[in-house]
Amino acid sequence: MRRLSVCLFAGAVALGLPDAESLAATMSEATQTCIGCHEMVTPGIVADWKKGRHAHVTPQDALKKPELERRMSASAVPEGMEGVVVGCAECHTVNAAGHKDTFEHNGFQVHIVVSPRDCAACHPQEVAEYGQNIMSQAYGNLMENPVFKDLVDTSNSVYDFHGGKAVATKVDGLTQEDSCLYCHGTRIEVKGMEARETSMGEMSFPVLSGWPNGGVGRLNPDGSEGSCSSCHTRHAFSIEMARKPATCSECHKGPDVPAYKVYQVSKHGNIYESMGDKWNFDAVPWTVGKDFTAPTCATCHASLIVNESGDVVAKRSHQMNDRSPWRLFGLIYATAHPKGPDTTVIVNKAGLPLPAELTGEPAAAFLIDEKEQGKRRAAMQAICLQCHGAQWVNGQYERIENTIKTTNEMTLTATKILLSAWEKGLAKGLAQKDSIFNEAIERMWVEQWLFYANSTRFASAMGGADYGVFADGRWYLSKNLQQMADWVSFLDAAHKDVKVPVKKTK
Amino acid sequence: MRRLSVCLFAGAVALGLPDAESLAATMSEATQTCIGCHEMVTPGIVADWKKGRHAHVTPQDALKKPELERRMSASAVPEGMEGVVVGCAECHTVNAAGHKDTFEHNGFQVHIVVSPRDCAACHPQEVAEYGQNIMSQAYGNLMENPVFKDLVDTSNSVYDFHGGKAVATKVDGLTQEDSCLYCHGTRIEVKGMEARETSMGEMSFPVLSGWPNGGVGRLNPDGSEGSCSSCHTRHAFSIEMARKPATCSECHKGPDVPAYKVYQVSKHGNIYESMGDKWNFDAVPWTVGKDFTAPTCATCHASLIVNESGDVVAKRSHQMNDRSPWRLFGLIYATAHPKGPDTTVIVNKAGLPLPAELTGEPAAAFLIDEKEQGKRRAAMQAICLQCHGAQWVNGQYERIENTIKTTNEMTLTATKILLSAWEKGLAKGLAQKDSIFNEAIERMWVEQWLFYANSTRFASAMGGADYGVFADGRWYLSKNLQQMADWVSFLDAAHKDVKVPVKKTK
Amino acid sequence: MRRLSVCLFAGAVALGLPDAESLAATMSEATQTCIGCHEMVTPGIVADWKKGRHAHVTPQDALKKPELERRMSASAVPEGMEGVVVGCAECHTVNAAGHKDTFEHNGFQVHIVVSPRDCAACHPQEVAEYGQNIMSQAYGNLMENPVFKDLVDTSNSVYDFHGGKAVATKVDGLTQEDSCLYCHGTRIEVKGMEARETSMGEMSFPVLSGWPNGGVGRLNPDGSEGSCSSCHTRHAFSIEMARKPATCSECHKGPDVPAYKVYQVSKHGNIYESMGDKWNFDAVPWTVGKDFTAPTCATCHASLIVNESGDVVAKRSHQMNDRSPWRLFGLIYATAHPKGPDTTVIVNKAGLPLPAELTGEPAAAFLIDEKEQGKRRAAMQAICLQCHGAQWVNGQYERIENTIKTTNEMTLTATKILLSAWEKGLAKGLAQKDSIFNEAIERMWVEQWLFYANSTRFASAMGGADYGVFADGRWYLSKNLQQMADWVSFLDAAHKDVKVPVKKTK
Repeated sequence: MRRLSVCLFAGAVALGLPDAESLAATMSEATQTCIGCHEMVTPGIVADWKKGRHAHVTPQDALKKPELERRMSASAVPEGMEGVVVGCAECHTVNAAGHKDTFEHNGFQVHIVVSPRDCAACHPQEVAEYGQNIMSQAYGNLMENPVFKDLVDTSNSVYDFHGGKAVATKVDGLTQEDSCLYCHGTRIEVKGMEARETSMGEMSFPVLSGWPNGGVGRLNPDGSEGSCSSCHTRHAFSIEMARKPATCSECHKGPDVPAYKVYQVSKHGNIYESMGDKWNFDAVPWTVGKDFTAPTCATCHASLIVNESGDVVAKRSHQMNDRSPWRLFGLIYATAHPKGPDTTVIVNKAGLPLPAELTGEPAAAFLIDEKEQGKRRAAMQAICLQCHGAQWVNGQYERIENTIKTTNEMTLTATKILLSAWEKGLAKGLAQKDSIFNEAIERMWVEQWLFYANSTRFASAMGGADYGVFADGRWYLSKNLQQMADWVSFLDAAHKDVKVPVKKTK
Repeated sequence: MRRLSVCLFAGAVALGLPDAESLAATMSEATQTCIGCHEMVTPGIVADWKKGRHAHVTPQDALKKPELERRMSASAVPEGMEGVVVGCAECHTVNAAGHKDTFEHNGFQVHIVVSPRDCAACHPQEVAEYGQNIMSQAYGNLMENPVFKDLVDTSNSVYDFHGGKAVATKVDGLTQEDSCLYCHGTRIEVKGMEARETSMGEMSFPVLSGWPNGGVGRLNPDGSEGSCSSCHTRHAFSIEMARKPATCSECHKGPDVPAYKVYQVSKHGNIYESMGDKWNFDAVPWTVGKDFTAPTCATCHASLIVNESGDVVAKRSHQMNDRSPWRLFGLIYATAHPKGPDTTVIVNKAGLPLPAELTGEPAAAFLIDEKEQGKRRAAMQAICLQCHGAQWVNGQYERIENTIKTTNEMTLTATKILLSAWEKGLAKGLAQKDSIFNEAIERMWVEQWLFYANSTRFASAMGGADYGVFADGRWYLSKNLQQMADWVSFLDAAHKDVKVPVKKTK
Repeated sequence: MRRLSVCLFAGAVALGLPDAESLAATMSEATQTCIGCHEMVTPGIVADWKKGRHAHVTPQDALKKPELERRMSASAVPEGMEGVVVGCAECHTVNAAGHKDTFEHNGFQVHIVVSPRDCAACHPQEVAEYGQNIMSQAYGNLMENPVFKDLVDTSNSVYDFHGGKAVATKVDGLTQEDSCLYCHGTRIEVKGMEARETSMGEMSFPVLSGWPNGGVGRLNPDGSEGSCSSCHTRHAFSIEMARKPATCSECHKGPDVPAYKVYQVSKHGNIYESMGDKWNFDAVPWTVGKDFTAPTCATCHASLIVNESGDVVAKRSHQMNDRSPWRLFGLIYATAHPKGPDTTVIVNKAGLPLPAELTGEPAAAFLIDEKEQGKRRAAMQAICLQCHGAQWVNGQYERIENTIKTTNEMTLTATKILLSAWEKGLAKGLAQKDSIFNEAIERMWVEQWLFYANSTRFASAMGGADYGVFADGRWYLSKNLQQMADWVSFLDAAHKDVKVPVKKTK
């Protein structure tokens, strides 16, 4: 234990914590046993854990902090964690009975996949909030919505070339897991046990489907959804990392949801990039002006923010969208946020599982109302107003809401062009019960909303205009329409002899 | 004042400045009054200001430095700033009479928009230089040039679908401000007064159009142009931030002007990214080799650079282009730089407000001559030569100038294809007095010069070849031509029955 | 020498090295002479060198380290370097006779271009390994492979518009050097001598072709290949910089090889970006967990990695691909790695210099076999297993190998569409002995494998799914096929009257 103590001491010094020699003694016996082998078997994660707060602070000590400074929301020390730090065993053996991936491992009932339900032992409020986060339903909202499932399959299939057309032949699970489900989360199931030769001799382990995965809506073997370590990266679980924008970039950088790219060219992102190395990313609560000069993603969407007088500017939230009136991305039209995190319950008048008609009219019954939007807008603006005057903030919001309107109009125009292609029989759409995503003109339509309208809205919302003009923004929003119109002409000319007029859709 | 003093002390320690307790006493009474409320109302910007030099150094002390180390160019302390640091009141109440946005605020004549003319109280030389910077005219050069205004409108309009075509229906001011004008600057005008409920009771404020904005060519309510805080971000106004490349990325990252992206893949950018955290970004003057190992944007284009012997390698410049012989981007063809910052005075032989004919021939009368180009080239090369041999530097310039020539040739070829489309009646252009930007084939032509030729030239100029080949560079420069030629064939086939031959343009 | 000593002392403190005053005395007399002038002539590189290890450690002292900690692989101090640090003269005058660029310079036989052969004086093993690195042959593998040379020329040519087509008219050497050869390396030859006026009076220097260049496969005037300073940037030659991913981004960021972009959105890249400023990038050997928490490019592909028990996890390698079973990028199909670094020896059954047929079947005789692939896979996995369990690592590899298979299938489909265009006479291909890269439909085919298949594979291999779906990944892989199929229809319609059916190719 001598070497570990030294290491822990170094970690503790880095965290500004009290003498580690004594803390080392507070590891549970089970955790000490884990580390005895794993320090050799997987030294990287053991070292990472030692650098983190879990290795140095017992829940008991964590609870002694004043409420605003607390990093755990349980009101009492969870059973079995009295007087010990949060080590391997505390997370990987908790709730053993509920975990289908629990297996016997050197005398312990260990599970591989630590889930939000496990974390709830100390962090119940955060886990409850996260259950209201649309991200926790990211698997189902994608895979159990037939429209979006079709988009997934169309994108990820292998195609062959038959009769002058590219035709989807198959889509396999490994590809889905390596593509959309990387971020949305996979379904992790225990498929049996297997014996493996290890440096400690032969051992048996559960065989997991969908593994590895750290997606935000992961379906865990204990029946829970999500993965705290998507953002609170294991095994240091550093709040600093969760607050830094690179963490969000793992899933929010592509052209469909370029939040990180927009942040980078925003003035806020410029300030962070240039000066952020002088900020305090570890303080709880997080004090505007003192700890940081410009917001990161977490500041606006999640963190507990106070001012130097100690007033709460924004409450901590793992729901994420409770400071956002509008759902800017992911859908054909931007609308108010859905009422709940499970969006598979939504159905528009045309019977499609979408929060708006193909004309853009919102499926209002499933969406938050203006009053709730106002509440969320005010929650966000409270943060803006720590640095900006009311006129600045209102002007910014007036632009965002105008941009939502105009980008929706541009999507409607693209939809009209697509409908004309369907009506002319140049492509097969809803009326033919064909995929609405698989032909080239349909792909162009998808890019109109999924890339260009989304990007333009992000650029507007976060003040990253450089992205919203020529990099996937307004330039493409209008250019794509011209190309779609030309494409319909070309299809018309090319298919003159073969096309069969169809009845008007809708 | 006790708490403020403590905070100032922390800031002062960070800056390596003398004891702050006494400095706190040097805030003007007016600024103390401002801070009394604003420390609670907008704590973020007050905290930011406290971290900056303005909060710690009086103009009087600033003038005691040897000339090369001075950060202000006024030769005397501005009236009213004797013995006080540069606080809220010093900037927001100066030149009150000239500001149409001046209003009565708790007994002070305050203006919202601090302009370059205000900054000139202490920094007159920098403001004068900036007046020669083409960026200071960024609003007019875009919005008052009919060709470019058309590009703006074509890009930002909302379109509808009529008669098989996407047709622009409207373009609104909020969109312009959220798009091109974010960087180019908005026109800020006082539209009246409004009363607002504040935490201090009801107050009246001027209503500003075009707000918020921090664009480089902003038209300010005092009649001045530009915004120093575009780069010297408020309210710390840190020279470190202005010298770091992320600051430039706010407006120079998109495909039309990818300077930052090119820098990132250049060897200079690699060195900065890997080792820049060990450099001194605060020193004035800035010593090559000692303070930094590789240049940032500011090093080459703006900063006062000296060597360890104290010789001036490059004089400080806020004109920015006085070390650059060529204007690489933004126009159809790259040419020598225009003689002055206002480019609306330029007219080519064909009567268009462009620095070159559509054939590429430069409108030489409006451009700097070879002698001036040579002078600017030498000014830049003096910096290169601090680390590189003459042959290296000359070789680098030979390549840039060859790239300017070949990319201009590739633009000419694209222009020939566009002319053929116009002549065949496949698109409407100059002869029909139609927009030259609104049809798909015209959009492809725009991308030839605005994206691909520009990107290739940047990649050449800054040694970022990885960007200039496959990422918007030479690959697309040649591919786009092939697609344009095909597109003309497709249009021809598609419109066979409808097109009306027109007389040859030009 | 006084000032130099002070500077050296500062550098030495930064490196944690012993007293520099005495070290200064260990510069060779020749180097002291160099620095006497160059401290004034090129102060930037002298300052950079002073900050590096070469300025502070003699080979003699370097050899005293335990073997695992050694940064030089020569077993003895090279002749002439006894007791001196590695300064200007040690590198620029070594092997003088073998260098065609050697010239008389103030009494010394100096060469401009320091080559791997020069570095081999102290680092023979690294140079030998690099000779097995496919990158060392990057010039020949590109320029002496007729297929790839055609791709280069097609991309870099200037085109004119004739007879409705864009036609390549010329490609110049300056463009090649500024484009592909920037990374692949130029051919540097001595073209004579020229006199130049310098601050020290008129002097004569060799005239070099292809200069400047720091490409990885540079053909040097001493007959060697490559440039160590591509990654070990001169003149500090910091191992920290070589280990940081920005260094690799210089050539691995574009859409053809987006390794860096994928890394940035991977969890590994997130951790590095957020927490890397706390890691030790200078330690040799490099200890997993202790020195770093997540891998950079170097960790997986090059560095000597140990664990805290001192066991070697991975041996240092400058071959780079000896931990990689698959060649993911650059070729039409991904295959096993070629047996040797010179790929110009490869010829497929169809007689093309490619490692696979146009159908995707590998040219197995030229490629490493499954056993060697297994060895390389195990070498990489040994690193993964420091932090991840066996099932995680195997799952990750299963996905990569599935992705290789499916992306190859998608390339085959694109190839079928291209073949149909050739067969219909809509484009000229192999049968017509025309370039297979110069028509628009061929460009689309190139992007299928060079951009989209490559990007998808990188995203899979490095866990950067956000890049591999919508940013040049699977979305485009399938969309491009639909557009290619449409394009063939459009060409067919547009060229109905002019096309000449040709016999089936192959």
